[in-house]
Amino acid sequence: MSDVLDRTAPTEAPILDVLSQRWSTRAYDSVTPIDEDALRGALEAARWSPSAYNNQPWRFIVARRGTATHEKVVATLVEFNQAWAAPAGALVVFVAETARDGREFPSAFYDLGQAAAHFTVQAHANGLYTHQLTGFDPAALAAAFSLDASLTPFSVMAVGAHGTIDDAPEFARDGETAPRVRRPIAESLLADD
Amino acid sequence: MSDVLDRTAPTEAPILDVLSQRWSTRAYDSVTPIDEDALRGALEAARWSPSAYNNQPWRFIVARRGTATHEKVVATLVEFNQAWAAPAGALVVFVAETARDGREFPSAFYDLGQAAAHFTVQAHANGLYTHQLTGFDPAALAAAFSLDASLTPFSVMAVGAHGTIDDAPEFARDGETAPRVRRPIAESLLADD
Repeated sequence: MSDVLDRTAPTEAPILDVLSQRWSTRAYDSVTPIDEDALRGALEAARWSPSAYNNQPWRFIVARRGTATHEKVVATLVEFNQAWAAPAGALVVFVAETARDGREFPSAFYDLGQAAAHFTVQAHANGLYTHQLTGFDPAALAAAFSLDASLTPFSVMAVGAHGTIDDAPEFARDGETAPRVRRPIAESLLADD
Repeated sequence: MSDVLDRTAPTEAPILDVLSQRWSTRAYDSVTPIDEDALRGALEAARWSPSAYNNQPWRFIVARRGTATHEKVVATLVEFNQAWAAPAGALVVFVAETARDGREFPSAFYDLGQAAAHFTVQAHANGLYTHQLTGFDPAALAAAFSLDASLTPFSVMAVGAHGTIDDAPEFARDGETAPRVRRPIAESLLADD
């Protein structure tokens, strides 16, 4: 288990513990296999996300550490991300379905983001840590898995048990204990009437 | 309060109650004002969403029923959506920030979706119901609020207390009690290794 600081978000208003305590580590336990029940629950939470017209424009590639599938995914990550993401118990690729049967899905990326959020919330409730990245080669990943042109890999999520600070690559250690920051909510409100 | 059926999702694996019990109503209480603390919590949850490079490419327009701001938002909705969404205590417009200081944000819509999901999770935990829609005129909405070209309104979320089935427009009533469906998770897995 982790020896890092409590990283609960300093919120302006009360929110669920699972939301305030979720954060994106780069220190993964590189030994413990992924908790299969916890992973299944996170996928199930993604499944029940809302989407425009209930189109469910999401697909997933689940790649557990040690498999050939995992190697294929890792090979598409930029070097910086390989260093901290490959040790995680699994990588989950979030793939947008941008069209189906000739119909375009303009909400595909937005809805994929919703599914990813649902996944992370349940993963953290189940004791897993997550960290999403977009620093990878989507074309190479699509080719590696022979994806149809209607399927666009958009993000890769590291998922797994939390390690210790020493499990993070040296360049990533400061980020593990840095203050968690967001701009105040007031600065995000274009109108509040 | 609601007199509708229990609409808990029939999940294949256990997930948090707040995720399995969240669903998108079209039957809003058109009298009760929005619960301000509950709304503030939902916005705070959105604030703490993850985003690529912590760019936080989201902005919100909060429009409470009865205000001029609300009228401006309602005027941009397609007629079908006006009928069920306008009665809700508030409409929240989710606006993507697609660029800042000359940098493009390719993850803006995905991250906006994550923020929307965090909002809905906290809203439901706080007793509010939500329903997102994309059936509105984004250009008209951007013009009505003089939005910069870097800001794209992507979705409008109805938020408020749940009404009774009679509060839903007649055309929407079947949807309030129809079975909740998603394709099996196995059909979303392009690989599972």
